Amino acid sequence: MITFDTEIRVWYVDTDQMGIVHHSNYIKYYEEARSAFMRHIGVSYADMEESGVLMPILKVESEYKRPAKYDDLLTVRLIIKEVPTARFTGEYEIYNTSGELLNRGLTVLGFLNKTTMRPCRAPQWFVDLLLKNGLKSDK
Amino acid sequence: MITFDTEIRVWYVDTDQMGIVHHSNYIKYYEEARSAFMRHIGVSYADMEESGVLMPILKVESEYKRPAKYDDLLTVRLIIKEVPTARFTGEYEIYNTSGELLNRGLTVLGFLNKTTMRPCRAPQWFVDLLLKNGLKSDK
Amino acid sequence: MITFDTEIRVWYVDTDQMGIVHHSNYIKYYEEARSAFMRHIGVSYADMEESGVLMPILKVESEYKRPAKYDDLLTVRLIIKEVPTARFTGEYEIYNTSGELLNRGLTVLGFLNKTTMRPCRAPQWFVDLLLKNGLKSDK
Amino acid sequence: MITFDTEIRVWYVDTDQMGIVHHSNYIKYYEEARSAFMRHIGVSYADMEESGVLMPILKVESEYKRPAKYDDLLTVRLIIKEVPTARFTGEYEIYNTSGELLNRGLTVLGFLNKTTMRPCRAPQWFVDLLLKNGLKSDK
Repeated sequence: MITFDTEIRVWYVDTDQMGIVHHSNYIKYYEEARSAFMRHIGVSYADMEESGVLMPILKVESEYKRPAKYDDLLTVRLIIKEVPTARFTGEYEIYNTSGELLNRGLTVLGFLNKTTMRPCRAPQWFVDLLLKNGLKSDK
Repeated sequence: MITFDTEIRVWYVDTDQMGIVHHSNYIKYYEEARSAFMRHIGVSYADMEESGVLMPILKVESEYKRPAKYDDLLTVRLIIKEVPTARFTGEYEIYNTSGELLNRGLTVLGFLNKTTMRPCRAPQWFVDLLLKNGLKSDK
Repeated sequence: MITFDTEIRVWYVDTDQMGIVHHSNYIKYYEEARSAFMRHIGVSYADMEESGVLMPILKVESEYKRPAKYDDLLTVRLIIKEVPTARFTGEYEIYNTSGELLNRGLTVLGFLNKTTMRPCRAPQWFVDLLLKNGLKSDK
Repeated sequence: MITFDTEIRVWYVDTDQMGIVHHSNYIKYYEEARSAFMRHIGVSYADMEESGVLMPILKVESEYKRPAKYDDLLTVRLIIKEVPTARFTGEYEIYNTSGELLNRGLTVLGFLNKTTMRPCRAPQWFVDLLLKNGLKSDK
């Protein structure tokens, strides 16, 4: 299992007239957590796309426990439990600075060959990087 | 069961560098489908807030089947199956003009007393409006 | 001069904790007004991109007179005064249903050859469409 | 004159199908630069609102020189030249890590009494903080 924390500051634009962060933004926070994790393991998701593989989203789930507010510094925890083959699953926990759990989420992404636009398997270099960074192979 | 269709045009800003609609926008489409439904039954969600009841989101689920593109005219179908008590559950199906299912979703919202900021039940006038518009009471 | 009105509904997500539409959204409204105008004259901006011409933004100006609110039905007026050559200039006026002017804006876009990524002139078919739809040539 | 630099990472969601950052995002970057500056001088814009003063935007200008891309680390420079009285003017320069100027901007904000919703002057504590942080009084 890989656990990776990244900090995200709540912007004013992401609030709504209820005075809290609009729920659609958590989906963006999950995505930026994945981007930050990629940078952390030494690649960029841009490299993935340049290598000819797109990662379209297949599924999102999000549970809202407590609201986030403008200017809050959130910790977005990305949890990776499975070695990706046809799909890459990430789980998320979002905490405020008091350590309260605000949100829990899940994303499932696929891998798509950019040329054929057909589903493909996770690139081996990506799997290797995940294994190198602490993910245990199922075998 | 209530089924309500609303049309939403895809804006350029909602595309991403994959050339398709960014997945976070579907969450906004669900919300606007709810807003359009409220207008259709003769109220505005603004009326709900002015009457002292907020409807914070508790849960979102979204499954992505096929991409939407810039300038597409989407049909967002809102499906309401249950009379809301403490929670209001909506299901969604998003179609393109070819009738292809692009996305399926679910949202669960709560009801919050704006003054006490405590959970409350669905306002009776809202339940009555839903029943008047075709929702069957469970009893 | 071409004057083209399009209606845009304010979405909940576009409000902020001040209880009004966040100012960044007006820039999106201008863009969607251009898209709606393109559809009105029988093309799509997607056609422009497919024909090999991108229209990157060069300049935006926006003046905020009165706030827009959630669920407001806005009229976004696009005003085109000049036949585009290297640049395409649009002016905007945004009104609420009471006819109050909420916002005034300006955008300048360039034309870019998608293959060479070098600036180019407005495609003749686009200029012809504008002339056919009421724009007067300067000559 | 105050010059304050803040770093902003480009998120995937902020790209569009042209493969670059959508122009509306720069307006958000300006806002977050102001928020970061407020934190830097020891307050939060949330404090401003809690003290009863809103700062609605009156004017935005933005000039786009070069595109920003996904995952770019941008430096957003906020430049404050004038002691605010009825208005607070900020200028912006956005650079990539190669030091290239991507964008230039300007914002003018007003001050609004939250209770009366009437324009008011800049709170003295805010003016004092700006003077303490290097802004020269005109007198």
